Amino acid sequence: MMSLKGIAASAGIAIAKAYRLQEPPLNIEKKEVSDKKTEIERFKAAIAKAKAELEKIKEHAHTALGADKAAIFSAHILVLSDPELLDNVKNKIENEGINAEAAMKETSEMFVTMFESMDNEYMKERAADIRDVTKRVLAHLLGISLPNPSLISEEVIIIAEDLTPSDTAQLNRQYVKGFTTNIGGRTSHSAIMARSLEIPAVVGTKQATEKIENDVIVIIDGLDGEVIINPSANVIADYEEKKRNYEKQKAEWAKLIAEPTVTSDGKHVELAANIGTPEDIESVLKNGAEGVGLYRTEFLYMGRDSLPTEEEQFTAYKTVLEKMEGKPVVIRTLDIGGDKKLSYLNLPEEMNPFLGFRAIRLCLEEQSIFRTQLRALLRASTYGNLKIMFPMIATLNEFKEAKAILLEEKETLISADVNVSDNIEIGIMVEIPATAVLADQFAKEVDFFSIGTNDLIQYTMAADRMNERVSYLYQPYNPAILRLVSLVIEAAHKEGKWAGMCGEMAGDETAIPILLGLGLDEFSMSATSVLRARSQMKQLSKAQAAQYKEKILSMSTTEEVVQFVKGNFHTT
Amino acid sequence: MMSLKGIAASAGIAIAKAYRLQEPPLNIEKKEVSDKKTEIERFKAAIAKAKAELEKIKEHAHTALGADKAAIFSAHILVLSDPELLDNVKNKIENEGINAEAAMKETSEMFVTMFESMDNEYMKERAADIRDVTKRVLAHLLGISLPNPSLISEEVIIIAEDLTPSDTAQLNRQYVKGFTTNIGGRTSHSAIMARSLEIPAVVGTKQATEKIENDVIVIIDGLDGEVIINPSANVIADYEEKKRNYEKQKAEWAKLIAEPTVTSDGKHVELAANIGTPEDIESVLKNGAEGVGLYRTEFLYMGRDSLPTEEEQFTAYKTVLEKMEGKPVVIRTLDIGGDKKLSYLNLPEEMNPFLGFRAIRLCLEEQSIFRTQLRALLRASTYGNLKIMFPMIATLNEFKEAKAILLEEKETLISADVNVSDNIEIGIMVEIPATAVLADQFAKEVDFFSIGTNDLIQYTMAADRMNERVSYLYQPYNPAILRLVSLVIEAAHKEGKWAGMCGEMAGDETAIPILLGLGLDEFSMSATSVLRARSQMKQLSKAQAAQYKEKILSMSTTEEVVQFVKGNFHTT
Repeated sequence: MMSLKGIAASAGIAIAKAYRLQEPPLNIEKKEVSDKKTEIERFKAAIAKAKAELEKIKEHAHTALGADKAAIFSAHILVLSDPELLDNVKNKIENEGINAEAAMKETSEMFVTMFESMDNEYMKERAADIRDVTKRVLAHLLGISLPNPSLISEEVIIIAEDLTPSDTAQLNRQYVKGFTTNIGGRTSHSAIMARSLEIPAVVGTKQATEKIENDVIVIIDGLDGEVIINPSANVIADYEEKKRNYEKQKAEWAKLIAEPTVTSDGKHVELAANIGTPEDIESVLKNGAEGVGLYRTEFLYMGRDSLPTEEEQFTAYKTVLEKMEGKPVVIRTLDIGGDKKLSYLNLPEEMNPFLGFRAIRLCLEEQSIFRTQLRALLRASTYGNLKIMFPMIATLNEFKEAKAILLEEKETLISADVNVSDNIEIGIMVEIPATAVLADQFAKEVDFFSIGTNDLIQYTMAADRMNERVSYLYQPYNPAILRLVSLVIEAAHKEGKWAGMCGEMAGDETAIPILLGLGLDEFSMSATSVLRARSQMKQLSKAQAAQYKEKILSMSTTEEVVQFVKGNFHTT
Repeated sequence: MMSLKGIAASAGIAIAKAYRLQEPPLNIEKKEVSDKKTEIERFKAAIAKAKAELEKIKEHAHTALGADKAAIFSAHILVLSDPELLDNVKNKIENEGINAEAAMKETSEMFVTMFESMDNEYMKERAADIRDVTKRVLAHLLGISLPNPSLISEEVIIIAEDLTPSDTAQLNRQYVKGFTTNIGGRTSHSAIMARSLEIPAVVGTKQATEKIENDVIVIIDGLDGEVIINPSANVIADYEEKKRNYEKQKAEWAKLIAEPTVTSDGKHVELAANIGTPEDIESVLKNGAEGVGLYRTEFLYMGRDSLPTEEEQFTAYKTVLEKMEGKPVVIRTLDIGGDKKLSYLNLPEEMNPFLGFRAIRLCLEEQSIFRTQLRALLRASTYGNLKIMFPMIATLNEFKEAKAILLEEKETLISADVNVSDNIEIGIMVEIPATAVLADQFAKEVDFFSIGTNDLIQYTMAADRMNERVSYLYQPYNPAILRLVSLVIEAAHKEGKWAGMCGEMAGDETAIPILLGLGLDEFSMSATSVLRARSQMKQLSKAQAAQYKEKILSMSTTEEVVQFVKGNFHTT
């Protein structure tokens, strides 16, 4: 038995067999073959096996994950039927007298290079398909088995270096009981995914793939950030007890669904949820959130071949507004560009995409995209309590320009006799340091602020939150971050506006008492964190938290802040 | 006659013939050839011509630019003598019966792909060499002439999309009278280069390469940011007059070389210069700078195959300190990583290098590199007035750790009876927003601050300063930036420390009155800007500038600030 420490990324306890989602190395040696005919037959057989496997995966994916997730496997099967690819490999075996592995590898590399050199996102995706398929064929030729996460049919704990969106798309939620990854932090993709699926996860263990073999029993302690490998029966019993206790606690929290969020001294704060699609509303309601604090509309634009129409968008926004039955819904306009590419928009490669042409910067230039979204939002506004929020605002001029475009579209709709609500609040994400520093000036112009801590932290600390080597600088409790947050809240209140937060920090147990003390009005988090946060709020006194404000803001390091919070706020 | 507006990147007027530093497109058609022998001869002839040309360029570069700049052409000649490359092309012509252009192109692409896929900086540079050489051979095959900037032998104005460091390395300073580029801003490589060479330049003209033909007369007005194409005789006469006036003004400024920098109300500020190598000291002294405000030591590490030894570094630091004869010299420890790669350090590729593993982050991990530099600095400290500065400090813990390592090395040297100065100030660059926000805490620990505005602005605005599409957000006069600068200065003064600035902003005519009003103690800029700045300072009243401080800091946009400065500070 041994254990690994990591970052508790998603609460809960899971106990199951390990499933390593890690590809074995495929070492290809180029060899001469004398019997070319047999070699070509070997190649054909490998293609057939790969195809059969893909058909099976595709079918499985279709039932378990839905048609859209299955589509990628159809694309892979098509690649394996492409005569240009197949003939090229066969010709290489025939003409150069080399083994099928080398012929496949060289041919594939040629196509990949060709597709990748094209200045076209679609072609680049084709290159990725060829890479994927090549791995599968080579594995069959070498007699090595690759992990096929979509075929998992028993309860497992996934062990991986990291989980990409395409990995997670293939996972069957029914069988995956927990995650652990070598890298990542609380805001990495795998962590956010685990929380949204309510699967316990520990990330950043550094050594998970090195220390954990397939099929050994693993305990994921997503409460304390620990992974226990090959536990004894006693230890398993202890963790089953811990699991039951946690489930009891969750049941307690579940009783708070219909309650308002009120502190021990009777102050109300709003607990909202972040969503990506209208389907997420189910979880929002199930977890008793008091509103949607952030609807990330970019998902409407992703995984497709063209821009969504005004009608499609209108339907999505209307659905969300209606289902929330008059509760506040903050919809953020398109935050695309930088690292989030759309294949059908020809965006340039950038050296530092996080500091690049994205979000409102792109929308103010590509106005037809922006205006279409704004019209859809305005038309949907009569179906609920809509608030519109612009992302990545860095200067007051950007906000004024964006607002002017919105008002222009509103006028046009009204003169065409379209109903538009008269009570749409217009606010901004505060996720750029300049905007936080100048919050007093912005507060005169906007209706509300929502602090986007994921980006605000990375810019304020000048550290890419996806980059493992500087992850030690991703410090939500750094006094510099807390001072900026405090500036924003004070600026809002001085002008009679409200300030919320929609970054990961808003749902963080250590951050919550600090933010309450700084006077934050709205906390928007993963829907699955809402009830825990409500329970925590009920135990906190806002007056007491506020008393600590000056003290915390005059601290000099993250460590000092964490120690103080641990010593002065006790919640269960 | 027509003119283009751009950004005045380097002062002065230049009038000369246009030299387009832009490569014509090389369109290669793959064709079958019947006479393979003649085709191979054609190929050999092109190789011979390319080699002869490279020999000439190399020789020229050797005399005009020095041995190190000439070395790159030796590498190119070697590539053209590589039998593996040559035989491959010949075999392709022979076996596939294709034209030499296509054979050369395909072979070259194969080698480039191979070298680029290697995880090794050296091999990647080989790929770049092959690319360069291939272009030259293809041009000869196609009968197209490429620009050869290193062969320029008459006075010209360079017209380019942009200038890379390798372009500028090839330029002969004697003949290049001015620059204009389509892209770039005041802090782009070409702009900084132009100022250091004292060559007038206008950048960001957008259309220079489109509108300017080779050999037409061009006027570069680096005072007002204008480029006049094909001027009439009258216009030329006007600009010759303007040029003489500017030269007269420069002669006036030159009289200030030995004078202290004193404002009209008798306050002294320090005007220092930024340097990259010990050779730059000549210009520092010639321009009457009162110190070196930033010595960028990374140039000691660049353009070589291994780390510089302690001895090499010691010699460089000692030279600079001695030549400055007791005037302050702020030496910044290694700021490498991110976009500045070293071929002999295997640094990982990063998605956002500006937010990555660089500078102090790297030094605290690669401690042997850091300690070698610190020992060299400590040993040199007795030869002048040394101040050591750490770059990219984001947290107080990083500073404490770096300082502890420095003190450890100092103790070790002292116990080995090595002389070390007892008066070395230890300070930090303030270039990360968190550090500016928390300056009051840092001020208790450091001896001085130097505000690095190039980075501080890009992080505070979340806009890559090299990215044209977001260059509108690179706003030195944004009130958010000015507030952070003010916070840093106030924090320093409260603890009795000094605050300087070593970004481009420190030498900017619009920024200078604002910074004087904010109380900045030291301004470090391009050496060539010092006398102009001194002349400006003599005309400014510090008391008056300070009166405007609160007003400026309560503004909400860059435009407001610029308008106010223009309306309230008159200097010539």
